Amino acid sequence: MPRVLIIGGGFAGLNAARGLGDARGIDVTVVDRTNHHLFQPLLYQVAMAGLSPADIAAPIRSLLSRYGNIRVLQGEVLSLDLERNVAVADFGEVPFDYLILACGAQHSYFGHDEWEEFAPGLKNLEQATEIRRRVLSAYEEAERSTSAEDRKRLLTFVIVGGGPTGVELAGAIGEMSRFTLAKDFRNIDAKLARVILVESGPRILSMFNEAQAARATRDLEHLGVQVWTNSAVTKIDASGVEIGAERIGASTVLWAAGVKASPLGRATGCEVDRQGRVLVEPDLSVPGHENIFVAGDLACFLYQTGKPLPGTAPVAMQQGRYLARTILREVAGKPRQPFHFTDKGQMATIGRSRAIVELGKLKLAGFPAWLLWLVVHIYYLTGFENRLMVVLQWAWSYLSFRRGARLIVSKEWRFHKHPDEK
Amino acid sequence: MPRVLIIGGGFAGLNAARGLGDARGIDVTVVDRTNHHLFQPLLYQVAMAGLSPADIAAPIRSLLSRYGNIRVLQGEVLSLDLERNVAVADFGEVPFDYLILACGAQHSYFGHDEWEEFAPGLKNLEQATEIRRRVLSAYEEAERSTSAEDRKRLLTFVIVGGGPTGVELAGAIGEMSRFTLAKDFRNIDAKLARVILVESGPRILSMFNEAQAARATRDLEHLGVQVWTNSAVTKIDASGVEIGAERIGASTVLWAAGVKASPLGRATGCEVDRQGRVLVEPDLSVPGHENIFVAGDLACFLYQTGKPLPGTAPVAMQQGRYLARTILREVAGKPRQPFHFTDKGQMATIGRSRAIVELGKLKLAGFPAWLLWLVVHIYYLTGFENRLMVVLQWAWSYLSFRRGARLIVSKEWRFHKHPDEK
Repeated sequence: MPRVLIIGGGFAGLNAARGLGDARGIDVTVVDRTNHHLFQPLLYQVAMAGLSPADIAAPIRSLLSRYGNIRVLQGEVLSLDLERNVAVADFGEVPFDYLILACGAQHSYFGHDEWEEFAPGLKNLEQATEIRRRVLSAYEEAERSTSAEDRKRLLTFVIVGGGPTGVELAGAIGEMSRFTLAKDFRNIDAKLARVILVESGPRILSMFNEAQAARATRDLEHLGVQVWTNSAVTKIDASGVEIGAERIGASTVLWAAGVKASPLGRATGCEVDRQGRVLVEPDLSVPGHENIFVAGDLACFLYQTGKPLPGTAPVAMQQGRYLARTILREVAGKPRQPFHFTDKGQMATIGRSRAIVELGKLKLAGFPAWLLWLVVHIYYLTGFENRLMVVLQWAWSYLSFRRGARLIVSKEWRFHKHPDEK
Repeated sequence: MPRVLIIGGGFAGLNAARGLGDARGIDVTVVDRTNHHLFQPLLYQVAMAGLSPADIAAPIRSLLSRYGNIRVLQGEVLSLDLERNVAVADFGEVPFDYLILACGAQHSYFGHDEWEEFAPGLKNLEQATEIRRRVLSAYEEAERSTSAEDRKRLLTFVIVGGGPTGVELAGAIGEMSRFTLAKDFRNIDAKLARVILVESGPRILSMFNEAQAARATRDLEHLGVQVWTNSAVTKIDASGVEIGAERIGASTVLWAAGVKASPLGRATGCEVDRQGRVLVEPDLSVPGHENIFVAGDLACFLYQTGKPLPGTAPVAMQQGRYLARTILREVAGKPRQPFHFTDKGQMATIGRSRAIVELGKLKLAGFPAWLLWLVVHIYYLTGFENRLMVVLQWAWSYLSFRRGARLIVSKEWRFHKHPDEK
């Protein structure tokens, strides 16, 4: 009875597990550090107080509970023993016949890990909550500040990185200042908040067509966002950002600039690219180990276009489903086929009523693109118990210009601290 | 132009502020440590993963934004200068003509503050999230444990304190184990979880009629909860609870046993009771200071029944509204009238379909009581933007036996830690 171990419950891991669900004679174990699957494309909405964590996350355990052959364990895999076909986790060893490594990517600060403290990235719920806390607290602090200089620094928001996440964050902060918060303060004018999107390259959204990216820039500017291109950040500290000789005083800096693959990719002993992604074979296996596969953001798949496939949800979902089919075929005695990615296009949203969309030759912008973005994202939330909730929440936010989840929740839960604690 | 300062945005403070909203010639400032008003009667639902924080909390700022004469500041008041009529907050001084002190209560460990680490209480969103994390993590850890002894300790939940909160928590854990989680695990039987409600007095729910409390005990036992009365806890540590010579091995202990009033009550210089509540005059002012009022959980009001009014939402709401009326009358040159509490009864819920209710002579139990509980709580969520959401979430949970917010979110958001950090 082949044992399949899936490390990571993201889009790749979850789709692989579902594809193997109820397969006779296959025993599946899913290990993840967290207890939940996260719909990452909407994570920025949690950071921007438009949605609650539970709207876009669901326990992996409950998403897979209907399959009797799947076991879910929360824990962290620390290393791989490829001789014995065993993964070593913090709770013990897990043996396998097939391994699917799908533990994704995290932020990269390009050698400046000390920047993370001042500029959180957006990869998990903890970080989304932290970003929400920082952004909302900045407005609160500005409201009670008596210094014009402090107020300016508090109401300046810098987003580093002009990819889709950076654009979505910048658009949402711009819009929140202009509409949601506009009437809530007495001492400050939230509309005067400065939102600066900083990109080191010559333009934002480099993966999109140039005209589309220009349209996105205009849409951002319409929401009060300044777009600074050709601006490489050279320093980030508690009071702002430096771009060469120029300094922006800002109390809130968000990082959306670079990612690096999970360190577990290197544990395969195989070649990795500059971002730490494993160079996989056409069937997503790693060289020299036919039974070990890598999928999702952790895989560098070069066979289709010559360039690595991007780290997006569609790639991860298709790879996960492909691996489930491959293992089922192999158990049935059929030969492997190479992975082929079907590109359905790409989209990015700017605020609550604009987006850009590219589907092959079809290019959309503005409100029609946003409607399409909405339909696609709601469709892909399938399998989430609370899809209806999200739609209603959105409808309500849209009609009322309110953000339902505007809560500042701190990290400390204890009243009574001991003398040896900070 | 009289300046009214309200410290605390709970039921008392919020109702006082609303009562003064748009009053001509009155300038109102509300100061709260957090940015949100919390619907505390449903906080246990957040702890038990039935609701999300945003379902029961809303920014004080947005709840009051329609009133042009009200300013909201997030901050902590550290002391009061009663000579100068000034409150000293962490962001500066706030002068007042009238002061409404309504900053509530927190948990009391009866001199054992070191227990808090092992047995969190339930007073704010941070604590609710922490309790949720502990309860759900215990099941996860039990699932991957290979030791029967560890599993037993991990699946034992002790709730200290048999008041309404303790009963609600115990009932919810019992129900979650029996129904929601029952099918999700492979290595453990969640139904075998032990839930023990420990009460030092001779019976639980001492504020209710004895027959009603007995019915609640039976309902709890039906959900698998053991009710231990006459059991005073003598020690709590990381591995369990001691009740005299008896020891219960439990990895999760929750505290619902005692409260003490905010330390700011003592800053009035007036007499306080054993729990630190300020002994107020019949008009809720403090002796010697006609312009300083105390309301809600922080006030000890003795004039109606000889016993202090309980620290419940109805008392706080009525006191808040009364104080707004009192100040409006005084500004209009009318004399003060004493506060009178209209008791509308009390209720406690046990799991998702049972409750006990006492409304004067009317006593209800079981499903009809639960329906009434539901209607009352939904009614009082008025003013929350997301009341409809909560109803839908409940309806869905009820029909599906699922809990939508079953997320374990840790306190750490950083990937890259510095060598000098833990």
